[in-house]
Amino acid sequence: MKAIERRIADLWFTEYQTPNLRLGLRIEDVLLNKQSKYQHILVVDTKQYGRVLVLDGAIQLTEKDEFCYHEMMAHLVLCAHPEPKKVLVIGGGDGGVVREVLKHDTVESVTLVDIDEEVIRASKTFFPTVSCALDDERVKIMPMDALVFVKEHHDEFDIAIIDSTDPVDFASGLFEQSFFEDVHAALTESGMMVAQTESPFAEPELLRDAVLGLRNTFERAFLAWGSVPTYPTGLWTYAVGSKKFDPRIQRRSAPTGLKYYSDTMHSLAFELPPFVKEIVNGGNLKEAKGN
Amino acid sequence: MKAIERRIADLWFTEYQTPNLRLGLRIEDVLLNKQSKYQHILVVDTKQYGRVLVLDGAIQLTEKDEFCYHEMMAHLVLCAHPEPKKVLVIGGGDGGVVREVLKHDTVESVTLVDIDEEVIRASKTFFPTVSCALDDERVKIMPMDALVFVKEHHDEFDIAIIDSTDPVDFASGLFEQSFFEDVHAALTESGMMVAQTESPFAEPELLRDAVLGLRNTFERAFLAWGSVPTYPTGLWTYAVGSKKFDPRIQRRSAPTGLKYYSDTMHSLAFELPPFVKEIVNGGNLKEAKGN
Repeated sequence: MKAIERRIADLWFTEYQTPNLRLGLRIEDVLLNKQSKYQHILVVDTKQYGRVLVLDGAIQLTEKDEFCYHEMMAHLVLCAHPEPKKVLVIGGGDGGVVREVLKHDTVESVTLVDIDEEVIRASKTFFPTVSCALDDERVKIMPMDALVFVKEHHDEFDIAIIDSTDPVDFASGLFEQSFFEDVHAALTESGMMVAQTESPFAEPELLRDAVLGLRNTFERAFLAWGSVPTYPTGLWTYAVGSKKFDPRIQRRSAPTGLKYYSDTMHSLAFELPPFVKEIVNGGNLKEAKGN
Repeated sequence: MKAIERRIADLWFTEYQTPNLRLGLRIEDVLLNKQSKYQHILVVDTKQYGRVLVLDGAIQLTEKDEFCYHEMMAHLVLCAHPEPKKVLVIGGGDGGVVREVLKHDTVESVTLVDIDEEVIRASKTFFPTVSCALDDERVKIMPMDALVFVKEHHDEFDIAIIDSTDPVDFASGLFEQSFFEDVHAALTESGMMVAQTESPFAEPELLRDAVLGLRNTFERAFLAWGSVPTYPTGLWTYAVGSKKFDPRIQRRSAPTGLKYYSDTMHSLAFELPPFVKEIVNGGNLKEAKGN
């Protein structure tokens, strides 16, 4: 008698990056799978990218490639500012951006505003290498709606980092011009902000609208780009608004030990491929702003 | 009586980019699905990326993002060479690289060596905007094994472009040092070559080995990188070997109308993120070559 081959449990997480595009990761285990007050939180161990945090079905970070995103979100603006002391991080409850921010000695305080405390808790439990700086004494955690927070603060922060989820539901306001105006008011006179603005391949209209909103609000506005393998299309953008300084110029060296960002990567991140320039209105923002 | 909801045909193509990572594209139709003498050829229409060519299960090109890859493969070396006249393209039976090569007025002839004539035929039938230059009178098509072809040619080509499939089966020899040595001999004294060398996230060992092979063979060897959304991890690399000229220096301007490559993108493509430098042996190749 011929033996039947032993079968294996074929377990996958699939992200529908768009209705017509999906990314699949083979998983070894599901560590957390719950609905918070605001969103669905999933933590899985994958073969390809290590441990992965998923919010409302969208990958937020993986252990293997989170450095690409978190380093760019933090250091593009922190290295462009001559002396960043007070930093505001919106979203980013996982702590990855805060970890990078605190690599800068000048930073005296980081205020983290994330609407969902459950994300912070999940990160502390399952992502110790990402959340490691959240208990630093310079960090103040505010579990509240960022739209409300920024309205209540004026002329206070040197840097604002908008580490939002995709612009659906409660996060959609974080991509609108009225929010950028409130952030502008919350920044000091030499303040800068950066926001993640999705992929030019998957969300070109969203990217263009966000950039236009920033351009209408800030004295200077530029787009930067970089690679993030587990975000849709792998090509990601970062929109930078600045009240005074040209953010393309690096004023302080990169912290040591980084894996994606470097002194060289700073300036080249602002040089856009022609098709991305085209999306943000026929030319990089510098042309539109005349600087 | 409650009506049952009408169901739709949910049709997908899935690429297993690694055993633990897969990319799924919703498809509208399958246009070609056949086994050639050398490989399986699939042509599908997708919602996300337009028409897609798949060889042995791996996406070779999509209508929406093929410009990222084909422009980099052609113009990095063609714009670095002062006067490229005779060009050799290995693989690339779809014609995308040839189309870009012929945007350079200096080019007098392009020899395309692809082992599989069925790919050329499929591209002419289903990808007219990609294969459009294959009937140009400057193009000579050689349907044969490139490993044999390069051994029979010496001091003949100014440029060699290795547009191979992934290094499995008949294509695996195209990533080995002995092949690079034959290409070196087939080039003129100022010749340059470029090879696609996969993703540093998905295939770091393969990338490092290919780069080492090139470094051992050519007087100068450098790695460049860029975005290609539908290739695994979206971050792709291009290894350039040169017998005389530093390929990081652009000697001729980019052709007009490009979407990814530009004069600015030329030099920044050779600036690697720290983690990629680390993979290719603790520093970009320039350090190892002393130039």
